[in-house]
Amino acid sequence: VTPGSALLPTSAGGVYLYPGEFEAIVHGLGSAASALSPDPRNSLVSPPVIARSVIERAGYAKSFPHLLGTVLTRSPGGTADEPDIVLLPAACYCVYALYEGARLEAPAELSVGATCFRHEATTEQGRLRSFRMREFVLLGTEEHCRPWRDTRLAAVRDWLASLGLETDRAVASDPFFGSENRLLKALQAEEQLKIELLTEVGDGHVQAVASGNYHKDQFGRVFGISDGSGAVAHTACVALGYERLALALLHRHGPDLRSWPGHVRKTLGLEEALG
Amino acid sequence: VTPGSALLPTSAGGVYLYPGEFEAIVHGLGSAASALSPDPRNSLVSPPVIARSVIERAGYAKSFPHLLGTVLTRSPGGTADEPDIVLLPAACYCVYALYEGARLEAPAELSVGATCFRHEATTEQGRLRSFRMREFVLLGTEEHCRPWRDTRLAAVRDWLASLGLETDRAVASDPFFGSENRLLKALQAEEQLKIELLTEVGDGHVQAVASGNYHKDQFGRVFGISDGSGAVAHTACVALGYERLALALLHRHGPDLRSWPGHVRKTLGLEEALG
Repeated sequence: VTPGSALLPTSAGGVYLYPGEFEAIVHGLGSAASALSPDPRNSLVSPPVIARSVIERAGYAKSFPHLLGTVLTRSPGGTADEPDIVLLPAACYCVYALYEGARLEAPAELSVGATCFRHEATTEQGRLRSFRMREFVLLGTEEHCRPWRDTRLAAVRDWLASLGLETDRAVASDPFFGSENRLLKALQAEEQLKIELLTEVGDGHVQAVASGNYHKDQFGRVFGISDGSGAVAHTACVALGYERLALALLHRHGPDLRSWPGHVRKTLGLEEALG
Repeated sequence: VTPGSALLPTSAGGVYLYPGEFEAIVHGLGSAASALSPDPRNSLVSPPVIARSVIERAGYAKSFPHLLGTVLTRSPGGTADEPDIVLLPAACYCVYALYEGARLEAPAELSVGATCFRHEATTEQGRLRSFRMREFVLLGTEEHCRPWRDTRLAAVRDWLASLGLETDRAVASDPFFGSENRLLKALQAEEQLKIELLTEVGDGHVQAVASGNYHKDQFGRVFGISDGSGAVAHTACVALGYERLALALLHRHGPDLRSWPGHVRKTLGLEEALG
């Protein structure tokens, strides 16, 4: 094994091992991203599996059946069974379930980290089936959520620029609660519910490295969450994709972390990590 | 959500969310454990999924079919398919696959971290279906592997004692390459291939928090790994279970991390983490 900064391919496409220097970047991104959140105590980590019922109720299983990985187990006798869990498709779902039935006296902001899974059909640079995501989530009113999403995403964009990553801001055409209906898709795009930050993660490979999503009252309705006035809560989230961000930084600054610009090394704590 | 140090149950048994203070313990354990490994550059992180073929060839799917979680996906049309990956049952499997066909001029020692999955039938304190594991792995000769396993496990035991965790050392009766054959099981126990460190993770709940395993040439044979002389390589690993260790520390020192003994807080870097 050659230690280094490059992802190590495995015999499964879109599944990679992460060597120490790659992990130093991911770890540095995580520590630095924590500074974007106002209250680091409200942080959660989720395991890579979640109750099937949460994902079904949230509408993901219906909208993206081809991306969802469910879990199959076998009895000692060999009989196959689909138990009560699936692979987590995005970090923030565990938060809405955690707040089921809650009435929020004030907007609640949380940070959640998790390894997510999507059964992607292709394996170009930056398209991983298993990947780590950090999300900031706000639960509140309509007046809180959309401006928060825009402000927080702008802060992420400035932060990425400070790391040398210029990003393009684009309205996504495939929002989180997807639809096969083209008119509905167009309306969702018109509402700018999902905005992505795109950058090059390899020669000629542009991927979304962050996104900001405003879900309106979709998850508030499903999980019975209300705001201070008793109305259905609205939610929004801003997501960072750690592997894609690390790949973008490696593409921008090169494979030798010791030659990266001093302020990037400092922000990511690479001096200490690399010894 | 009340921030705190206790695992947050979800609607799926044996699946928990980890709040910030619990994560501070896990993070501190990870940093401190790195000091147990001689060369931190030889570190890997694995995603929670792995090629199905690796787990089948390694014998896990046959030995523990009831614990293995496989992944099921569906086509856009709804047809179910079992793709080429399964949930990782132990961190070290990715290492043997990475060394497939290698000839080792010298023993190789690696550290690997991963979130693992086992479809446990019960959910008592400390028995999680999804849990994080750090493993140290040695690939070398028979002469290297067993003494390394014993030395490394003794170091782990001393380290845990320094954190206030007294552990019992026990030979396990269910080694990694399991057998339904009672005589074979007894012989494997007699050979002391798997040794566990046990401690209380809750009132009356004793669990293994670490283990040391000597696999003889099992994985060397399967993956065609040879030592410097061209003989089949032997392997050994020492594993730490992060959630169980964190639970054991919480059980030992109490739920308020600020009241933990100063040297434990210092070793785990809790002062900085808690602000």
